[in-house]
Order: sequence, then C-alpha cells, then structure tokens
Amino acid sequence: MKVKEILGEGDLAKRFNEKDFLARIKIEATVLKGLRHYFERNGYIEVVAPHITKATGACENIATMFDLDYFGRHVYLTQTGQLYLEVLSQYLGKTWCTIHSFRAEPRVDNRHLTEFVLVEMEFLGGFNQLLSEIERAIGSAIRQVLMDCGEEMELLDIDKERLKSYLPPFEKITYTEAVEELSSMGVRWGDDLKSIHEKTLVKLHGNKPLFITHYPKAIKFFNMKENEENPNIVNSADLLLPFSGEAVGAAEREHNYYRLVERLLASPMYRMLQERGGDIRDFDWYLDFWKNIGGKKHSGCGIGVARVVQSVLGANDIRLTTAFPMNRETLY
Amino acid sequence: MKVKEILGEGDLAKRFNEKDFLARIKIEATVLKGLRHYFERNGYIEVVAPHITKATGACENIATMFDLDYFGRHVYLTQTGQLYLEVLSQYLGKTWCTIHSFRAEPRVDNRHLTEFVLVEMEFLGGFNQLLSEIERAIGSAIRQVLMDCGEEMELLDIDKERLKSYLPPFEKITYTEAVEELSSMGVRWGDDLKSIHEKTLVKLHGNKPLFITHYPKAIKFFNMKENEENPNIVNSADLLLPFSGEAVGAAEREHNYYRLVERLLASPMYRMLQERGGDIRDFDWYLDFWKNIGGKKHSGCGIGVARVVQSVLGANDIRLTTAFPMNRETLY
Repeated sequence: MKVKEILGEGDLAKRFNEKDFLARIKIEATVLKGLRHYFERNGYIEVVAPHITKATGACENIATMFDLDYFGRHVYLTQTGQLYLEVLSQYLGKTWCTIHSFRAEPRVDNRHLTEFVLVEMEFLGGFNQLLSEIERAIGSAIRQVLMDCGEEMELLDIDKERLKSYLPPFEKITYTEAVEELSSMGVRWGDDLKSIHEKTLVKLHGNKPLFITHYPKAIKFFNMKENEENPNIVNSADLLLPFSGEAVGAAEREHNYYRLVERLLASPMYRMLQERGGDIRDFDWYLDFWKNIGGKKHSGCGIGVARVVQSVLGANDIRLTTAFPMNRETLY
Repeated sequence: MKVKEILGEGDLAKRFNEKDFLARIKIEATVLKGLRHYFERNGYIEVVAPHITKATGACENIATMFDLDYFGRHVYLTQTGQLYLEVLSQYLGKTWCTIHSFRAEPRVDNRHLTEFVLVEMEFLGGFNQLLSEIERAIGSAIRQVLMDCGEEMELLDIDKERLKSYLPPFEKITYTEAVEELSSMGVRWGDDLKSIHEKTLVKLHGNKPLFITHYPKAIKFFNMKENEENPNIVNSADLLLPFSGEAVGAAEREHNYYRLVERLLASPMYRMLQERGGDIRDFDWYLDFWKNIGGKKHSGCGIGVARVVQSVLGANDIRLTTAFPMNRETLY
C-alpha cells in the first residue's frame, strides 16, 4: 500500500513513504495531546473561537487573510482567537483554544502553510508568568512525545537526547541583544528578524529553544503592552525552536482603552484594513469591552503546532508535520 | 461586569447573564474534554483534517457550503473530515479529528448555527462496533460533566439524575419502526425525519438518547454501506438526544470502488455539485484510493458538540451552548 496515494495533488507525495508518514502523524497527534493535557491539568478552560470573523481574527498582516462572502458581508477566515480569549480570560482566569489559522500565503516552499493548527492561551497575569506558562506547555508536549512515541522516534531517527535538551527552562535574550549578535549579518535595531536570523540565533545558543523578548513596538501587534521603562519596546516574546524557528508568539496585553485605540489607529494592520474597505467598527465589541468593563492584567500566546512538530522531528520541511499540508498548490 | 457585552451584535446577548454564561462555557469545555479522553484512552490517533476543501468536505447538501476563492480556484469551507479520516483509518486503525463544520444556513433560529464543532471518528470495524463506540464516547462526555461540573450543574439547575439517565446503553429502533410510530403524524417510509418527529420519538422512548438505525439509502450520504439483506436501506445510525435531536450521524462505509462511483453519480449531492460547476474530479484522490489500494471494512460518525451540550444543559436553544454562537446575523 502506498500512503502517498492519499495525498492527492502536489509533488509532496513523492517524498513520503508509508511508515515514516504514519509515525509523523502519531507525533503530531502526541504534541497536540501534550499541549491539551497541560491546559487541562492547570485549570485552563477551553473556549471555542469562531473561524469566520471580522478583522478581529487578524494577525498583524491583513493582506494575508482569506476573504469570504458571508451572506453579503465581507468577512475573513480567522488567523487567531486571541481577542476572543482575552475578553473571556477576564472572567475565566485561564483560557485556551485550538483554531485553524488561515494565511493567504502564495509561497509554496518548506516554510509556509496556508492552514495550520494554532493552540492559544490567555490568562490573568504578567510577563514573567507568561514565559513560564509557555515553557511548561511546550515541556508538556515534548515530554508526551518522549513518553508515548518510543517506536516512532526510533523509526524516524529522532535522537532522544536531542529532544530532552528541548525541555525547559529555556534561555532568554532580548531583541536588542539578538540584534547585537546578528550585527555582522547587517541586522539593525528595528528590523524584523528573518528565518535565517532565527536559525543563526538558535545555533549561537546551543541548538535549543530560545526566547527573544522585548521587540520594538513598531513592528509588533497593536495590543502588545508597552514596556514600563522603555516605550520603544513591548513586553513580547517569541520562542524560537531548532529547525523551525518562531513557534510561539507571546505578549502581555494592553488593556487601557485609550491606548488601545491610539495604538490600533497607528498600526500597519489598521492601514491595511482601511485599504480593504474596513474600519474601526470591526473592533467595536473588543474596544467597547475594555472601555466599559475590562480589565485586569493579562497575557497570552499562540503556539504553532506544525512548528513544534517540525522541531521534534528535526525536519527541514514544515510539510512533513501533518497529513494534509496546505499550500497554494495542494487541495484534498 | 456584564458578560453580554462581549457578544457583540445580535439579540442573543440579552438572554445572557454572567454566571450562567460562564457555567455553560465550562460545560461545553468539559464535553469536549470527555470526548477527547475517550479517544486518547482507546487507541485512537488524532488527524488534522483541512478546513479548506474540494467537494470532499461536503455533508450531503452542497448548497449549504460556503464558497471560497483559493488563489483563483473555487473551493469550499469544510463540513466534515470524514473522507480524510476514512482513508487514514485504513492504516491507523482508529482515527479521530475535531473540525469546525460550516453551513451557509440562512435561518436564524434556535436550531441552526453556521459554524459548529464536529468531533469525528473512523475505525476499522462494522456496524455493531460503531454503535458501541458512539455509546462509549457520548458516555465519556456525560460522565466527565458529572465528574467535573458539580457547581455548574447546580447553578444551571441541571438535574443529576436526568443526566445519569443519558448514560449508555442507548435504546435502538430502526427507521422503519420509527416511521410506524410516527404514522399518525403523516410520516411515510422514505421521508426524512424532521425535528418535530425526532422530539416525538425521544418522548415516546422515555426522554433518553435513542438510536434510529437503517435509514433508506435514497436519503443518505453516498458512501453509507448498503444493508446485506435489504438493498433499500443502509447500515446507518442517527443518535437522537433529548432537547437537541440528532446529535450524531453514523454509518458503516462502502469501500468497493465501483459501487462508490455508482452511488456518488446517482446521489443528490453529485447533482448539486454539477449545478455549481463541479464534477467527479473533486473526489479523485478518494475514489482512486479505493480503486488502487483500499480497503478494509470501516465505520465512523460525526458528533455535533453543540447538540450534546444542548442536551446536557436541557436547553431549547442551541445558541446557549457556546461563547460565540454563529448565525447569519452574528459576527464577532
């Protein structure tokens, strides 16, 4: 039997052979299980977030949203459940969700998918707790693989010791420190970090998970909390993993209504929204909430499951992480 | 604080008050947890099924699919991951997935959502095992609520004894028997059962979960397995629950290539697909699989989580089952 047959269109099928493919599916399932168990065992309450949204489902770059005609209204396929979780975290304390995150990303390569699983959490608490929650959630996923996937790891030549070295605590450096380390590559303060930069940083820090904290405010999502000591940076953290790069995006959130409006209106996301015929009304219920009701200090993150799986596998292609990898050229 | 504020548009918000709303979210989360634990503890392997699909993501009525422009191709938002699970069940033995199922359903009422969570399973095995797996999965969800949600049940006035009466085994009657019981309501053999008929049947059978088995072939999905003794019926089962009606749709599957093609071409679904400019090529990879590789006897089902939650709650409105209920008039 040839599993590649089930993959339908695309050259990708050629790279698969049965046993490896099934072992990788088992590892993807186990990473999901490990993440869920972390939430279940630590008092998080699951929320079902909508996949058809207004611009409230956007992750920074609205140009990568899929458009949908929803009974005559122009809406989008979601990219994040963050805003929904944020509001509910005010009542439930600790919340999480799983969504399919959609990106209208035309590139067909080893790094981009048009649809992938995003596991998100949001809780009442600040930046230091955020880093700790992420470490524990990722640690739970890695430990679940070590526990459940002995056979699969052997079959796929996954080194147990390598995987154990991905267990927390994770090293943390600031964005500013990262830029210094990358100065010979021409990176300057204010630049976003590219894949090659992420790979270099991970290599410089022992090929293990690495937090990059406190990015410039100007290049990050509008509701990331400004740092109290330096208004040019935000209390954000990206977790870089070996092989896959940025697997988690995280931040403490702004919940002051006036600052939120100011930041939203000044954001590149908002400019893009306007270009597509949208306006601030897309964010009405969210902004009204912080104006009228909220809020307490809260923080959260999104965990790209395919990136975690890719790192566990030690694979150079994200398309190896899931049964039906989606890009412009594939449809099943 | 008013939780209704977070609900954005729609009259629905008026019906909520804080504590009830939060208790219901906790129960939805617990039903999901109970279902997952069943799969995790019984050797099922999770598969991530795509949400952007060809007609392979359709549940019978293609007219209720949302259309999407996917890089110039006409595609759909998924309604079921069944065909994907079916193929993988041939290798993995027992598979499951969670999807958001999308229905372009214009009715705004207490029974219809345009987006809801569907938990699906597919395994190597036949019809009797199918009924048993469904009983055990639903039983696991109910037991999880009984175990985890004491406070919430009290707050929401959910009678523990009522809930215990929903534990398996479930009574089973055939479609033909059901039609006889409904004859005074004008129901004839060959008719689909409407909501009012489902309610009547559940009432006649003690207000408990009730399987209706062996529906007419003509009104069911193209790959439901024809009964060996009577070619006019299929080895299908719908599970009706008190308050919500049909919560699970299930069947043993056809895996003979020639019969599949014949049944597909003769199906109402296929006629609708053609009217929308599609053709049999949408099913290429699925049909090719059964032609070239498959298959072993397999069966499966889809569990509508909102319907299970509605039944647990004893609620008359499906919009009470989730934080962001979606219909034509709501967007968040």
